[in-house]
Amino acid sequence: MTAPLKSIEGTGDLAAAMAAIGRGARTAARILALAPAAQKDHALTAMAAAVRAQAPAILAANAEDADEARKGGATGAFIDRLVLNGARIEGMAAGIETVRGLADPVGTTIDAWTRPNGLNIERVRVPLGVIGIIYESRPNVTADAGALSLKSGNAAILRGGSDSARSSRAIHAALVEGLREAGLPEAAIQLVPTRDRAAVGLMLAGLDGNIDVIVPRGGKSLVARVQTEARVPVFAHLEGNCHIYVDGAAALDMAKTVVLNAKMRRTGVCGAAETLLVDRAIAKTHLKPLVEMLLAAGCEVRGDEATRAIDTRVKTATEDDWATEYLDAIIAVRVVDGVAGAIEHIESHGSHHTDAIVTDDAAAANKFLTEVDSAIVLHNASTQFADGGEFGFGAEIGIATGRLHARGPVGVEQLTTFKYRIRGNGQIRP
Amino acid sequence: MTAPLKSIEGTGDLAAAMAAIGRGARTAARILALAPAAQKDHALTAMAAAVRAQAPAILAANAEDADEARKGGATGAFIDRLVLNGARIEGMAAGIETVRGLADPVGTTIDAWTRPNGLNIERVRVPLGVIGIIYESRPNVTADAGALSLKSGNAAILRGGSDSARSSRAIHAALVEGLREAGLPEAAIQLVPTRDRAAVGLMLAGLDGNIDVIVPRGGKSLVARVQTEARVPVFAHLEGNCHIYVDGAAALDMAKTVVLNAKMRRTGVCGAAETLLVDRAIAKTHLKPLVEMLLAAGCEVRGDEATRAIDTRVKTATEDDWATEYLDAIIAVRVVDGVAGAIEHIESHGSHHTDAIVTDDAAAANKFLTEVDSAIVLHNASTQFADGGEFGFGAEIGIATGRLHARGPVGVEQLTTFKYRIRGNGQIRP
Repeated sequence: MTAPLKSIEGTGDLAAAMAAIGRGARTAARILALAPAAQKDHALTAMAAAVRAQAPAILAANAEDADEARKGGATGAFIDRLVLNGARIEGMAAGIETVRGLADPVGTTIDAWTRPNGLNIERVRVPLGVIGIIYESRPNVTADAGALSLKSGNAAILRGGSDSARSSRAIHAALVEGLREAGLPEAAIQLVPTRDRAAVGLMLAGLDGNIDVIVPRGGKSLVARVQTEARVPVFAHLEGNCHIYVDGAAALDMAKTVVLNAKMRRTGVCGAAETLLVDRAIAKTHLKPLVEMLLAAGCEVRGDEATRAIDTRVKTATEDDWATEYLDAIIAVRVVDGVAGAIEHIESHGSHHTDAIVTDDAAAANKFLTEVDSAIVLHNASTQFADGGEFGFGAEIGIATGRLHARGPVGVEQLTTFKYRIRGNGQIRP
Repeated sequence: MTAPLKSIEGTGDLAAAMAAIGRGARTAARILALAPAAQKDHALTAMAAAVRAQAPAILAANAEDADEARKGGATGAFIDRLVLNGARIEGMAAGIETVRGLADPVGTTIDAWTRPNGLNIERVRVPLGVIGIIYESRPNVTADAGALSLKSGNAAILRGGSDSARSSRAIHAALVEGLREAGLPEAAIQLVPTRDRAAVGLMLAGLDGNIDVIVPRGGKSLVARVQTEARVPVFAHLEGNCHIYVDGAAALDMAKTVVLNAKMRRTGVCGAAETLLVDRAIAKTHLKPLVEMLLAAGCEVRGDEATRAIDTRVKTATEDDWATEYLDAIIAVRVVDGVAGAIEHIESHGSHHTDAIVTDDAAAANKFLTEVDSAIVLHNASTQFADGGEFGFGAEIGIATGRLHARGPVGVEQLTTFKYRIRGNGQIRP
């Protein structure tokens, strides 16, 4: 049995303890910002080895978490996310090694130019500083977020879900061993040692300026709390109400393949399609086979009048359906007037996350890609490609639905900012 | 005399009026995001012409503002910022033409790559959407901010200072004439038609999601209010506590020229140096001539013990002095132990805005440029180059002191975000 949770609950001094975590993170961030790539990679290699070596301790801690959750009446899906096994631990270790293999973004030159007065200006990548990550009871996020933060030169303050506190602590111990082996400060990756939800509020307030950005990874109640309370920038993931539009110039075969994948590959991911739009021009030939394919795949279909007319199993779509992220085997279907009608529907009802068009008409595709104001727009490809790994980012900390700084998958590059480095030979300003 | 201010005060429905402004801006933003560069440039040309043509009306409105301010007991400096004349109006018109001459950032490809599965991914610039600009009584900001927002494809909601309300309204009328002539929506640049400060609160709350970013341009009380109330991202300008460090390997002549310019060219700008750090290794040869030069130029010098020892006119610097942005002819001076000592001082006391080193030692320069964590770091050049125009950005809406998205001068490029445009030929995700 693992030791009882090291805790700062009940000490009456949560604020002081959290402030100390913030200061420690800031100090570590200054060191990390200047750490050579080889030293960070050394730590990541050692972290992966420590996760593997400490698998028994991690599994034991996780078993206690799972027991407690089961006694507390958690759902099967919740337990499934929480429970670790040998394969999942190996997945975590391999994930850390994937991050180690990425190019180090820190110090790279984004842009450089020389002014008429001879000043040479460079824009170079630097870390954001301290990242606060607030997540639910998925223990693997502890490893993922810690590794990504370190690779990008940032200190991390991790606040995991209460139900996986022991698991997170055991995984965190392995990460710290990796930091130690590489001679990096242990405060580079800190785990908030309390289940007290007031700690989340203190993080959202920024810990006296010692958190530069918050990454919330959780359900709607966390997101709502973050929206209300955060006093620092947030990389938030809101909704993925994604659309797939089958244009009049779409080949039916490709439309069927792409629509089925976009909706049914995994229904619970943010890139899953929630609404199918079909061009009125080909409704006669394409709508019925698409709807029948979806029904045959076990997908509930909620349609407008035109869609209901082709199959009695189609239920009625209401206005709410156009705005709903089902995250389930349900799809809303509507017939629209060409690409302009599709764009109008998406801009009125979508969440600006990921939207796709299937068409052989290059002009229609360009219009869609230009006019749909979403983080990710695709032509002839599944919406389920909305993923940092699929973009080639190697790993991601989430998909940002805000418009500023990070939009779409948030990988190591998105975890950096920049500064201007200017070299002169005595220039003064007239 | 101009007509009384069109106002929504006292109608009891400020919230509804502001919400309508937000919706109008969002609709205009969708049109602006797709407007060709030529159409935006047409509008900017027409705006500059209208500002020149309507100079008499603008001057008359400004005279009323100035009268009211004088009767209200405004200071000379305040009146100076408020009052327009023919040259200042020509400056505004020329400023709009400068913005017109910039490259259109919208639609440019930032990055592009092809995945092993054949998906072609492009990262392209798109406008931010709707920008809310809250500023004090500098009427020229109405023209500057309106022109920069339009060029970058964004709708603008302008909330100018109460004391320049008539001037802003007259300038705004000229901008709207330009929009009209180019066939762009008049709601592309809206001026909040009330002096009620509650309008600022509504803007900071985001007008029902219809403001994407807030740019505050004002004093400390506005910045404090924004920090507390803003529920949308902010490009804030906090402090510019800038340093200039004269290294042991600095040539005295260059050090004198650069220090004098950094401190005294204009003392009220954010890039003005506030603290001079001198390497102990050359204090004997360099400190006295630098201090005497500053005193001779009319600058008050507040120094540490070593600095006070060389001239009796040097006052005592306290801990507060190291953290103060004087924006005046005052400088704090301290002797430090080499570049490491300078970096330690700057990281402990600075505001991460702009800092410079003077040295002939390339290694010292590189250390400084790498380790000082400021938006702008310079080698052998004046801190007063902290300016969008001097960077070649043509024009700026301000200098951002945050770390995310925009850092340093905020020009048209910084007023854009990006989206991913992906082209496939039927790819589905395994």
